[in-house]
Amino acid sequence: MSSATHSFVTRWLSAAADKGAPVCVGLDPVLEKLPVDLRNASDPVNGIEVFCFGVIDAVAGSVPAVKPQLACFERYGSTGYRVYERVVDAAKTAGLLVVADAKRGDIGISAAHYADAFLTGDHAADAVTVSPYLGPDTLEPFVDAASGSGKAVFVLVRTSNPGSAAWQSLETADGRRVVEHVADHVQALNAQRNGGEMYGPVGAVVGATHPAEAAQLRERMPDTLFLVPGFGAQGGGAEDVCPCFHADGPRQGTGAIITASRSVIYAEPRANETWQDAVARAAGDLRVQVAGVVSPSAR
Amino acid sequence: MSSATHSFVTRWLSAAADKGAPVCVGLDPVLEKLPVDLRNASDPVNGIEVFCFGVIDAVAGSVPAVKPQLACFERYGSTGYRVYERVVDAAKTAGLLVVADAKRGDIGISAAHYADAFLTGDHAADAVTVSPYLGPDTLEPFVDAASGSGKAVFVLVRTSNPGSAAWQSLETADGRRVVEHVADHVQALNAQRNGGEMYGPVGAVVGATHPAEAAQLRERMPDTLFLVPGFGAQGGGAEDVCPCFHADGPRQGTGAIITASRSVIYAEPRANETWQDAVARAAGDLRVQVAGVVSPSAR
Repeated sequence: MSSATHSFVTRWLSAAADKGAPVCVGLDPVLEKLPVDLRNASDPVNGIEVFCFGVIDAVAGSVPAVKPQLACFERYGSTGYRVYERVVDAAKTAGLLVVADAKRGDIGISAAHYADAFLTGDHAADAVTVSPYLGPDTLEPFVDAASGSGKAVFVLVRTSNPGSAAWQSLETADGRRVVEHVADHVQALNAQRNGGEMYGPVGAVVGATHPAEAAQLRERMPDTLFLVPGFGAQGGGAEDVCPCFHADGPRQGTGAIITASRSVIYAEPRANETWQDAVARAAGDLRVQVAGVVSPSAR
Repeated sequence: MSSATHSFVTRWLSAAADKGAPVCVGLDPVLEKLPVDLRNASDPVNGIEVFCFGVIDAVAGSVPAVKPQLACFERYGSTGYRVYERVVDAAKTAGLLVVADAKRGDIGISAAHYADAFLTGDHAADAVTVSPYLGPDTLEPFVDAASGSGKAVFVLVRTSNPGSAAWQSLETADGRRVVEHVADHVQALNAQRNGGEMYGPVGAVVGATHPAEAAQLRERMPDTLFLVPGFGAQGGGAEDVCPCFHADGPRQGTGAIITASRSVIYAEPRANETWQDAVARAAGDLRVQVAGVVSPSAR
């Protein structure tokens, strides 16, 4: 199941079925928010490493995937980057799929280098997020690397931040918004390539904070798996992410990876709980909440 | 002059005047293109490090700045990232300004982490490139970090790749193209902040391959310094970059950093030249060519 001879989509659907919900925990370790003994460790980078390993242990039983945020590691330069690599290795060893949240984007051979770094190198993840501003030609090296190695690429389409509409939602001369141009391109890439799979190798990042748009984008990109950040702390709830899933047909209840970060990794321990107990409980709660969205009878 | 108590703009204008032309050499080391003995080194990452140090030595006398491309280093994971840091340190020691070509972009605290990593950390560059797709709020942490530390941030506005028009040039409902929305925002940030300096801390990446647009963007963003890639190997010539500079007034002959990479770093050695001799010669040629654009009487 974890063999790279299967596509990301196959591995994801299988892992989500095994764990009982299509969820992902974001690994966004911010030193100032860590449990107090880790926050005050003499070496902050080591504190972050110990924290990430602890989160991986705590969530591996209940979720199919984790999403490390590169910025949190790069904050500490090459030393932090080395910790990112060890976190990827540890998550894979724990049987988790890994989405590298790198939001990279560059032209020509530079894009190919980033694709190599995140999808085919020694510490390769299973998927990487990319930013589309530079244009469709700059997505190709990522799509080629993903297709050739059983991995996936998630293109930023509609992001969850407060200012995301400013440029993403501009209406263009042909009536489509910018976000719809990008969405149509992503869907076209998948329609060309999906080869009988339920979804193609090019996913879309669609924030949980825009439910009405998520419904439109789900219709517009039927063959595209959504990565949905913003669940929990950013304000997206169960009803908000519902439209990201197919509501009927053979793909009913599939189509999205719901991601929560702060609400899980910084869960407040209750009496007699360690911080890891609290993280494990919050990951379990996330699984139950999202399982209820996908098959309402399980609520 | 290299003190961080002066702004990037002040340091840049002074360095460009000292060296005689507003040029920058892109450090995009691709293993397969290195001089044969470095290409075949037992350790490819070491080959890249030796190459970059050699280029820095060869160009430091004739150009004011270098622009390392992060993808070329990240291709080799944390080991490559460590080489990037050493290259930044070496370039600064050689008196060069350093633009980290990272094209990062993320939301909230992640953007702040990237800004820290590239602008204020142990191996901080003098400026960093960022991608605007996520929205204006995601530029703020970079602008704040740059303003607070005498650094600069260059926002991708119009890139030099063949497919760049697909989304950047979409016409929107109010008649402006997407690129013009981003440009107007960049200009507004500088108009708010420039505090008597010739340019604000927020630069714009404007490819050398679109001269007609460069002229419009120069008019639209008078207080904005342009970083202009695509000179040389990508097809941009002296006439193409001319519109990136102010043509008259007190800022005449300023306003752009012209960047060449492949045409300099992979310059073909002539008889009796080492590869470093060839790089030094090509950097000198770049300086003369661009000096001729800025003050035609010097041609």
